[in-house]
Amino acid sequence: MLAGFFTTLGALPQIIKAYRSKSVGDVSIYMFYTIWVGVLLWTVYGILKMDWPIIITNGISTFLNGIMIYFYYKYKN
Amino acid sequence: MLAGFFTTLGALPQIIKAYRSKSVGDVSIYMFYTIWVGVLLWTVYGILKMDWPIIITNGISTFLNGIMIYFYYKYKN
Repeated sequence: MLAGFFTTLGALPQIIKAYRSKSVGDVSIYMFYTIWVGVLLWTVYGILKMDWPIIITNGISTFLNGIMIYFYYKYKN
Repeated sequence: MLAGFFTTLGALPQIIKAYRSKSVGDVSIYMFYTIWVGVLLWTVYGILKMDWPIIITNGISTFLNGIMIYFYYKYKN
């Protein structure tokens, strides 16, 4: 439970930092694309197995990493 | 398998970017601490259940996020 809590909310500190500083020059967008594809596939896997803990934790991760990808392009310039 | 591949190697692009640019000013170290604690707990959980896929994927993640934390302090200034 605790392990899932930390890994699920991992992107949150970076989202807050990007939002406050409006600066993402040193952030690797490929990291967020890689994780985003991974957690999206985990969510699909969870849906196929109807495993709710997998769906919920990875669904939240997909959402958070999606926000970070949006912020990257918003604050890139 | 594919989902695990992407989420396990997620930190790699950021490590490569930090190593090349020697710059981490926009990176949130709290993101890597949060994920590091999470994957470390997953690794412990895997060891307790002797579940090798969990041990291996999260063990690699723990190692990679540890490298990124090291690079952060190395290139911070």
